[in-house]
Amino acid sequence: MIVDTGVALNTVWVVLAAAMVLFMEGGFSLLEAGLVRTKNAVNVTMKIFVDLTVGVLAFFLVGFGILFGPDAGGVFSFDFWGASQSLHLSLNLPLSAYVLFQIGFAIAAISIISGAVAERMSYKAYILIALFVAAILYPVSGHWIWNGEGWLARLGMKDFAGSAAIHALGGWAAFAFAKVLGPRRGRFNSDGSVNVFAPSNIPLASAGTFILCFGWFGFNAGSTLNAADAQLPVIALNTLLAAASGGAASMLYTMFRFGKSDPSMTMNGALAGLVAITAGCAYVSPYSSIGIGLIAGLLVIWGTLAIDKLKVDDPVGAVAVHGVNGIFGTLAVGLFDAQDGLLTTGHTHLLGIQALGIAAVVVWGLSMSFLFAKLLDRTVGLRATDAEEEEGLDMAMHGIPAYNELERFSDQPGGDLLDFAKAGAALRVAD
Amino acid sequence: MIVDTGVALNTVWVVLAAAMVLFMEGGFSLLEAGLVRTKNAVNVTMKIFVDLTVGVLAFFLVGFGILFGPDAGGVFSFDFWGASQSLHLSLNLPLSAYVLFQIGFAIAAISIISGAVAERMSYKAYILIALFVAAILYPVSGHWIWNGEGWLARLGMKDFAGSAAIHALGGWAAFAFAKVLGPRRGRFNSDGSVNVFAPSNIPLASAGTFILCFGWFGFNAGSTLNAADAQLPVIALNTLLAAASGGAASMLYTMFRFGKSDPSMTMNGALAGLVAITAGCAYVSPYSSIGIGLIAGLLVIWGTLAIDKLKVDDPVGAVAVHGVNGIFGTLAVGLFDAQDGLLTTGHTHLLGIQALGIAAVVVWGLSMSFLFAKLLDRTVGLRATDAEEEEGLDMAMHGIPAYNELERFSDQPGGDLLDFAKAGAALRVAD
Amino acid sequence: MIVDTGVALNTVWVVLAAAMVLFMEGGFSLLEAGLVRTKNAVNVTMKIFVDLTVGVLAFFLVGFGILFGPDAGGVFSFDFWGASQSLHLSLNLPLSAYVLFQIGFAIAAISIISGAVAERMSYKAYILIALFVAAILYPVSGHWIWNGEGWLARLGMKDFAGSAAIHALGGWAAFAFAKVLGPRRGRFNSDGSVNVFAPSNIPLASAGTFILCFGWFGFNAGSTLNAADAQLPVIALNTLLAAASGGAASMLYTMFRFGKSDPSMTMNGALAGLVAITAGCAYVSPYSSIGIGLIAGLLVIWGTLAIDKLKVDDPVGAVAVHGVNGIFGTLAVGLFDAQDGLLTTGHTHLLGIQALGIAAVVVWGLSMSFLFAKLLDRTVGLRATDAEEEEGLDMAMHGIPAYNELERFSDQPGGDLLDFAKAGAALRVAD
Repeated sequence: MIVDTGVALNTVWVVLAAAMVLFMEGGFSLLEAGLVRTKNAVNVTMKIFVDLTVGVLAFFLVGFGILFGPDAGGVFSFDFWGASQSLHLSLNLPLSAYVLFQIGFAIAAISIISGAVAERMSYKAYILIALFVAAILYPVSGHWIWNGEGWLARLGMKDFAGSAAIHALGGWAAFAFAKVLGPRRGRFNSDGSVNVFAPSNIPLASAGTFILCFGWFGFNAGSTLNAADAQLPVIALNTLLAAASGGAASMLYTMFRFGKSDPSMTMNGALAGLVAITAGCAYVSPYSSIGIGLIAGLLVIWGTLAIDKLKVDDPVGAVAVHGVNGIFGTLAVGLFDAQDGLLTTGHTHLLGIQALGIAAVVVWGLSMSFLFAKLLDRTVGLRATDAEEEEGLDMAMHGIPAYNELERFSDQPGGDLLDFAKAGAALRVAD
Repeated sequence: MIVDTGVALNTVWVVLAAAMVLFMEGGFSLLEAGLVRTKNAVNVTMKIFVDLTVGVLAFFLVGFGILFGPDAGGVFSFDFWGASQSLHLSLNLPLSAYVLFQIGFAIAAISIISGAVAERMSYKAYILIALFVAAILYPVSGHWIWNGEGWLARLGMKDFAGSAAIHALGGWAAFAFAKVLGPRRGRFNSDGSVNVFAPSNIPLASAGTFILCFGWFGFNAGSTLNAADAQLPVIALNTLLAAASGGAASMLYTMFRFGKSDPSMTMNGALAGLVAITAGCAYVSPYSSIGIGLIAGLLVIWGTLAIDKLKVDDPVGAVAVHGVNGIFGTLAVGLFDAQDGLLTTGHTHLLGIQALGIAAVVVWGLSMSFLFAKLLDRTVGLRATDAEEEEGLDMAMHGIPAYNELERFSDQPGGDLLDFAKAGAALRVAD
Repeated sequence: MIVDTGVALNTVWVVLAAAMVLFMEGGFSLLEAGLVRTKNAVNVTMKIFVDLTVGVLAFFLVGFGILFGPDAGGVFSFDFWGASQSLHLSLNLPLSAYVLFQIGFAIAAISIISGAVAERMSYKAYILIALFVAAILYPVSGHWIWNGEGWLARLGMKDFAGSAAIHALGGWAAFAFAKVLGPRRGRFNSDGSVNVFAPSNIPLASAGTFILCFGWFGFNAGSTLNAADAQLPVIALNTLLAAASGGAASMLYTMFRFGKSDPSMTMNGALAGLVAITAGCAYVSPYSSIGIGLIAGLLVIWGTLAIDKLKVDDPVGAVAVHGVNGIFGTLAVGLFDAQDGLLTTGHTHLLGIQALGIAAVVVWGLSMSFLFAKLLDRTVGLRATDAEEEEGLDMAMHGIPAYNELERFSDQPGGDLLDFAKAGAALRVAD
């Protein structure tokens, strides 16, 4: 069957954008694996595979229907995938392309959390968290904003590609999980000072950042869902400019303030710019995008320091990048919107709606995640044991180190086999 | 010269999909470099460059004509590139875009082999194998399936993007080469047990997996060759769902069966899901795709154990991923095809054709590769020397280690220079 | 607002191509980080972030207007971004898409330089160089070639995607900066021999190469700026063929000449083929592309040796790849152009124009960069101190090592904190 050229173009555009968004999972994985300590780099990678596997299935089977199904009271839907197949979107786009794109968004929300809880969470607890976020947490607040009948949508909240719906939600959920989980052993001293656990692999983290930047063009510009949207190229340009100015702000600020241009802050500055422009990329000018990025690049530094002060341990800075700048980006639409922004037009109405909307999303994300974390803590357990944390989660939970340059498992018959091989051998004996 | 919008859209679509498929070479390279031992990581990378260089040229100049040229008896073509330039495809697509896309497919078939023969093959032998696969092995069986006049095509075999034509062929060719080559030194003990050679770099392997997943959207959805094909977004969605369920099955199975969620198995599980959906992505439903992925994620584990039992040494699991799941994916069309599948409609006709087709491809791949491997073994030599294998192929064949963090070659004048530099210095003296 | 389908298709095409070109920055970063010594891998990464941040802003705000604004005498424009917003391109493409694509080109020109000056340049000097190249150096000579009214454009110079405008300019600017900067300590012996500083991470460098190859499809084919251009797929095919033959030439030459197939030369050979086809990809045949690639793959080896002889220290071979092959690629149009090439038609006119054009670009790039380097050297300082160079620029300028597998900063309270953390703690005390 052949569709008309306009639909075909939209389909190709959204499928390619979705592939780019899904590729961002690789970006999250490399960024986080590079920023944690060596002994936990495999575990954080495996958590991204949790997002890409059970997270994808949970959103496809359950979450999508809650987000986009027939509305119930502006807050929820009782629809699930089977029923959603007959969903009539007011889009010039096949449903399957739309679902694919939305899956990429859902698992991005989960992956934000994975970094903040790195290096000390139980792997099984993380699997349950991924199911919870993909199936319930994100779809419900997403429904408020992006389902045409959602209560925030009806108020006129503007969150083009999800500074609120994805980044603030994921960032503040991450804060709640990290808070309940507690800091890594030895992270905070009794005098309030912080011990720095140096990132294990900066080039790997940079590779992740580049992939995230690449995917973000799909994330933001793809959210047009329509190749003929005249704003499409402006969105892409705004996205780049905010990333550039965010990174510039962090890079120059750390250079002049601390005497060293800090790599992880520079990367997080660029990502903060991207997060902050995500809500407004379709509504603000290129100059405003530069301004938004500059502020985001500073906020991410101050946010990191503030979260340290609260003694919440976030190994990769996910709360400062996604949580703090998710709030800022949502409010920035109220400030810089070309039609209704406070700074551009003097209107205050939109800013009020944006503030209400982001408050609702943050409260929802924080409170539900806090409750779910407590529930897990009292049932399956939220945290790795002290021995596992000391050994590193890679060996404890996956039986393999991230880097094995010394080849300490190999080369001598009878040497120390991997647990998997032992188990495999046992299986063969058992057969 | 300007083409009409429909052709332009198809061209852009296929060129972008081709770029994604060609980027998969980077995925193969990083995955394989991460899964082998450190001392062979450069060599396995260089073999991918063989695919991307001489492999590309061999398929362009010879293989393409054999695959798609005027048919002779359903089994071959004597056409080559010069003549192929006047080829009239029944496609709304320029020939050069089609050639570009097909090159990506051909070298994927070679790259499957590179992993299975890693850590002990002569580099020169591999170059000859790349030429053989790109110019003859893959184009001939590909002709049977994808040339409109091929005997399997005329029977009605369905292999949309190549579970059989690419993955089963490459996987079973890999098995034959690995069998003739013999296992790595110290891999198998006399009591039948297996020594595990731990992967050198799991984050690198994960980066490769993410790139492969990204490229696979181009691989499968690009095979429409037509942006207006109504199945295009369904194919992309099915591709993601099979990867997700394949990875989920491996991840959860290893966790519950062996107590550890195994990283390389999880990655291979996602790839197995992708291989298995490659034949049927255009013909089955999203729910069937999830089922196909789940089975693939288990088959890759059992396949890995079975191949170990046969004492064939496959360092990266290429046979289990591509060979085993190439067969399964081809048969899965016969089971799950929406129009003719056994499980969906009760028809057995298509399943019979799929079984015949996959049998023909596997026999062709295995037997011809076995013969070619024997031929190489008796002429140029197939295997590195024991000394080279012990030292590692990186230093022996390329004069450089993968990682040089200790900088043991540098910093002191008169230190131990690289062979290349020595040779370069000799060259300058000679001039 | 909705645009017509032709414009929408062009927009999507150019935005995606731009994203691919911008992703090449990740390629430059990983390639360079892998080819330098471990102790400078962070610094070279951070320089790419300079390109992506201040470089992007400088070209957007200043450079774009100089390049494409209303012409003054064929050599310059006094237009800047504000005014450029009313620029009427004779393109079926929104201005913002065009700007986005051009930003990717501008920062590629800067990133070429970053590799050649690696391991010993002051970070602040590099920031000023990035501003200089993005705002002035590249836009001026780019104006000559790509502004419709530029003097080389009016002469009929053919430089489709920038062998001259980007690669030769960047490569010879890199030569001038590396020359004034001087070699790394211990690089050259008094007897004229070269000490090799072994690359730190070959798999990382290969990942960079794969990303560059992927992005180059956007770079070359995207330069059509028009999805309906009938040459689009031919350009993409030519691009691949030149990369393949360039890599093949380097790989096989080093294997037969030096006994080892050299990895960094193979990668640089593929990149050299890409650089050399960049000017002519729209004008030459696939067979000519193979020939151009083969020559480029040899030139990069001879160029590397020649630059060593000149005692100019280029840690990653940027001059040989981009400078030497930028010249060759520009001249190759004069030789192989299907309509006016010397070898294809016997005409000499085009070859003369190409030679004049490339001479002008190289003289401009060399002389201005030489002057700017001297200026920096006498003002802010061009070079890191001996102590910084000895320690490595990563710790000296960014306070963090690239790889921290021993976790030497962490795990014990009171251990050696990172400078950033110290500064952060100081900040908190100060507040």
